[in-house]
Amino acid sequence: MDVLKKAAALAAADLVPDNSVVGLGSGSTLVYFIEELGARVRQGQLRIIGVPTSYQARFLAKKCGIPLYDPMDIESVDVAIDGADEVDPVGNLIKGAGGAHVIEKLVAACAKQFVVVIDASKQVKTLGERTSVPLEVIAPALSFVMERVRQLGGHPTLRTGNGKLGPVISDLGHPIVDVAFGPIVNAARLDQQLNNLPGVLGHGLFVGMTDHVIIAHPPTEKPEIKTYTIRRMPRASLKSG
Amino acid sequence: MDVLKKAAALAAADLVPDNSVVGLGSGSTLVYFIEELGARVRQGQLRIIGVPTSYQARFLAKKCGIPLYDPMDIESVDVAIDGADEVDPVGNLIKGAGGAHVIEKLVAACAKQFVVVIDASKQVKTLGERTSVPLEVIAPALSFVMERVRQLGGHPTLRTGNGKLGPVISDLGHPIVDVAFGPIVNAARLDQQLNNLPGVLGHGLFVGMTDHVIIAHPPTEKPEIKTYTIRRMPRASLKSG
Repeated sequence: MDVLKKAAALAAADLVPDNSVVGLGSGSTLVYFIEELGARVRQGQLRIIGVPTSYQARFLAKKCGIPLYDPMDIESVDVAIDGADEVDPVGNLIKGAGGAHVIEKLVAACAKQFVVVIDASKQVKTLGERTSVPLEVIAPALSFVMERVRQLGGHPTLRTGNGKLGPVISDLGHPIVDVAFGPIVNAARLDQQLNNLPGVLGHGLFVGMTDHVIIAHPPTEKPEIKTYTIRRMPRASLKSG
Repeated sequence: MDVLKKAAALAAADLVPDNSVVGLGSGSTLVYFIEELGARVRQGQLRIIGVPTSYQARFLAKKCGIPLYDPMDIESVDVAIDGADEVDPVGNLIKGAGGAHVIEKLVAACAKQFVVVIDASKQVKTLGERTSVPLEVIAPALSFVMERVRQLGGHPTLRTGNGKLGPVISDLGHPIVDVAFGPIVNAARLDQQLNNLPGVLGHGLFVGMTDHVIIAHPPTEKPEIKTYTIRRMPRASLKSG
């Protein structure tokens, strides 16, 4: 998969305009993307300022020589590039396997263009087929939220990892609950239902946010890259909320 | 090691008085301890209120039926029981492999008696022989702190795990830097030097805090348990501190 991820990442780098502010997504594909951007910056081909979506992206970008704005200090970015765990045929996404989806969604929402970079294995007919929906939940709400998502038909699991005891904690300081819903027939409705749960800081369903998806298909020495416009979130709707 | 850990945990449970407030440490040995306390509570043998040092301890104690106070709501506990990664001959400790050392130290400092439970493998002649000293560091201070601990002779590593991208984040929301110092000749001095670093929320050296150490020695069906008083931190010093 690495050669696919790398090919998709290079195609994404070609979409980044000179003199732009660029949202830097997280994940394994994005490592290739950030390294490529950094190489172009160091060679003087590209002048950009990055906006990192995670500590992972931030530390890597810094190492690669990409100057950075903090998300706290900006209202918009020109283009945000990110990966995804599942992409459906209309460009809706499940993200958050890396636990960075809350800032990723913030940066995507700030972006004039939101571009998703995947290898073909991430394509699904229906979101939720394989992947759980991650919820970032404030700790006092954990029991409440787990009960409510059960009522929505989900099977919640508190995410554990290693490197520390107990639950994984996000860069923002909150535990993550992975909710297996199975195939999600109405992603827009579930998006709204999860948004309405008190104590949920954010979730990994990205509905109506994706402008473009870049897909690297196997088999490949020089993999085919498709770029197509999926759907454009009306920017005005951000104001009418 | 599990039979040793369990034996040590049972001996620790015998030290918990009825009608007491008990600091509940974190880690694999403490799992046995909390489960044993829970059994005694459910059987009506023991009335206690626990004070958890981590989400791990909290969720487990809740599951075991132990009523809980939050550390935020109390000033003192009667006895705190915890594990350790290294214990030296005078009862100084390195803790924090589980990333919970900041609250563990808080609860230990609140305790009238601080009891450490280990198996014999955790004993060392000199702290730092095998284990790094974990520092919980606010993110803006990471570069600064890593440079300063290098000046103190340490080799810092940002702790990574899995379950999320990038660095491990503690229950309190901060990254953890593991600093390999090698054998620490003067633990009290290093304790002070680390305490004086801006941006360090806490570190895993516990100097002069331990009242008792319970050690389970192999070989064992019924392992020998040693309990001995190591050192008592004068409580008055907390005020003049």
